[in-house]
Amino acid sequence: MSDVTSHGAAVPRAEPFSATRALFDLPADTVYLNGNSLGPLTHAARQRVAEVVASEWGQHLIGGWNECGWIDLPRQAGDRIAALVGAPEGSVAVCDSTSVNLFKVLSAALRMRPEHRVVLSDAGNFPTDLYVAQELLAGLGDGYELRVVAPEEVADAIDERVAALMLTEVDYRTARVHDMGDLTRRAHEAGALAVWDLAHSAGAIPVDLAGSGADFAVGCSYKYLNGGPGAPAFVYVRPEHAEETRSALAGWMGHEAPFAFDLDYRPAPGVQRMLVGTPPVLAMAALDAALAVWEGVDLAEVRARSIELSETFIAEVEARCPGLELASPRDAAARGSHVSFRFEHGYAAMQALIERGVIGDFRAPDLMRFGFAPLYIGRDDVLRAAEVLERIVCERLWDDPRYADRKKVT
Amino acid sequence: MSDVTSHGAAVPRAEPFSATRALFDLPADTVYLNGNSLGPLTHAARQRVAEVVASEWGQHLIGGWNECGWIDLPRQAGDRIAALVGAPEGSVAVCDSTSVNLFKVLSAALRMRPEHRVVLSDAGNFPTDLYVAQELLAGLGDGYELRVVAPEEVADAIDERVAALMLTEVDYRTARVHDMGDLTRRAHEAGALAVWDLAHSAGAIPVDLAGSGADFAVGCSYKYLNGGPGAPAFVYVRPEHAEETRSALAGWMGHEAPFAFDLDYRPAPGVQRMLVGTPPVLAMAALDAALAVWEGVDLAEVRARSIELSETFIAEVEARCPGLELASPRDAAARGSHVSFRFEHGYAAMQALIERGVIGDFRAPDLMRFGFAPLYIGRDDVLRAAEVLERIVCERLWDDPRYADRKKVT
Repeated sequence: MSDVTSHGAAVPRAEPFSATRALFDLPADTVYLNGNSLGPLTHAARQRVAEVVASEWGQHLIGGWNECGWIDLPRQAGDRIAALVGAPEGSVAVCDSTSVNLFKVLSAALRMRPEHRVVLSDAGNFPTDLYVAQELLAGLGDGYELRVVAPEEVADAIDERVAALMLTEVDYRTARVHDMGDLTRRAHEAGALAVWDLAHSAGAIPVDLAGSGADFAVGCSYKYLNGGPGAPAFVYVRPEHAEETRSALAGWMGHEAPFAFDLDYRPAPGVQRMLVGTPPVLAMAALDAALAVWEGVDLAEVRARSIELSETFIAEVEARCPGLELASPRDAAARGSHVSFRFEHGYAAMQALIERGVIGDFRAPDLMRFGFAPLYIGRDDVLRAAEVLERIVCERLWDDPRYADRKKVT
Repeated sequence: MSDVTSHGAAVPRAEPFSATRALFDLPADTVYLNGNSLGPLTHAARQRVAEVVASEWGQHLIGGWNECGWIDLPRQAGDRIAALVGAPEGSVAVCDSTSVNLFKVLSAALRMRPEHRVVLSDAGNFPTDLYVAQELLAGLGDGYELRVVAPEEVADAIDERVAALMLTEVDYRTARVHDMGDLTRRAHEAGALAVWDLAHSAGAIPVDLAGSGADFAVGCSYKYLNGGPGAPAFVYVRPEHAEETRSALAGWMGHEAPFAFDLDYRPAPGVQRMLVGTPPVLAMAALDAALAVWEGVDLAEVRARSIELSETFIAEVEARCPGLELASPRDAAARGSHVSFRFEHGYAAMQALIERGVIGDFRAPDLMRFGFAPLYIGRDDVLRAAEVLERIVCERLWDDPRYADRKKVT
């Protein structure tokens, strides 16, 4: 691919993702730097949902399960995600939410290590992951413990009491990246299993589930995978564990023969056993269509471009906006695909930014967060965002009483 | 409302639901008697989903959570369902699947009765409910037991070892109705809690959760509530239990302050604590729109009409189709809103029926199942279904090798 500047000079690969950008239905005059929270709509998802509703549900009714392939969506979308996270075909399923999937694999990991009673995590983990572990362990009774340490202390906190190391690879606030391969190896050396949350990894950075030796993984499909608000999550079970993986949460879609209506549960082979209830077809169809955007996309190129955009943004903001302090790792290799800046007036400044068409988000107490999804974000967007931010900071536009507190969802 | 026969005579209330029927987008030339499995599309759901995708997700992006009220959908749809199942406002939430919700309330019930170790259910329960209990109990260790008895033996099997009586009110095969009030009272007398699955009740028969004293309930929204394939389920927590209800499965949307991102879980007040992950917005919007169909509808009238249609169908089939044996209770008061007939060639006969535009379904080994949803099914449909069935049975049209075995979802 190549592009041409206003001076007429060829600039090779200036906007290497212009083809994928055309697949997104982005609002005009908006720079959307919050795809790490909710990915935008694709034309494909809009069309597919309309078709599934009107033609499939509307005309095929119950027949849609077979005639329209609804029943295959968890595996079909799972295989598309597997290709993005370094997992073999058939090892990823799409179902439920990230929290529910984490519960399943964590409960399974604890059953696989009955002599170990500790789940080890870090204080940078997304809180729902900690809540899942807390309440699961509370139900298991005495002796079980959730140990939460600082992210940089995780490696040293792995000991022989640990049943499961439960980490989110990319920190939702700072984008700090854990070393999945190294920590998984250390967990295994201590006899523990490694459970990874890829919420801010999938579609953002290359992930090598198979190569890292990760035992289980879960992740979100509504961020960089653009599945839609509250889209179903994914779950990975390392193939060699599949037959001994028994979640405390099981249901008919994870049964070996769901339509035999047997009274006894017999888990389906492989990751299919992680399914529980009836798949949410409308949501799965939106996700499946959105995932098609990734066909032919090289994640190494996505990563290179993400770093280029992020580095540009950091340099521009640091040059233009005194008072903002980089909260993300400066080393691009240790950083995911978003960048956070600390700013005392961050909440109000972010509201001012959003009002001016540059959409990032805010994380208490003082983080302004900007996500860079190369599939639809280009260098122009990054420069415009930095310019608008500069104006807000320099002119103290955040100092406006309209920018009051309100709710927000990642 | 009144109607006029071909003889010109006025027949009061012949099609009392013609107004609601117009709200559904049913395929032409089809008699859809499978709304007990997957309710049909409403015009409202189609329009709402299109709007949520294109305008809300597409244009509001992350802002949709507040600007478009996405964050309120679990409670909003929950309140609509509460009105249909005799539950007070604020006591029902929409989230996850029926199986996952059952897991939550069952795990909570077991924590509330630590001295009791038995979950009592019946062999007519939908298998996923039994799987949920089996795998939950397996994870809790020794001493826990799932006791499964015949439906008619449930009352006598309640003893002081029972922690939770876990039943589906309406049998998915035969439509046999359990006496929710009586069995709940017996459970309470033995010190147990009563957990009800309303999958085939909600929108089909009047339910009085508050009056019956039921402790917890779950249910499906894609059957008589027409929420769409795999639509999110609902969960009810008796308000007096809310503050002591602790599910083993918890997540950030059930936290008292999800956006504070605290490291410790503190359950939200009331049924809100049953939420776990991020709500599936597209699916919730479809359901919420479909539920609007029920505004102004009297469930007692729905029930009366359902009985009228079912009785007509039974009489017609028994008169026309020798060889088919009623598998549902003959007493309409003991039967939900579907009717099942036993027929040796039931699978093939049902395929022949579907091919001729009359859609019911089949449950192994020999049940032909027909659901009567008065909101969109009228007397003409019932008569046509019986006529087509008669032809298939009398002319042995089921005896065609094309009608081979295939998968099927309720």
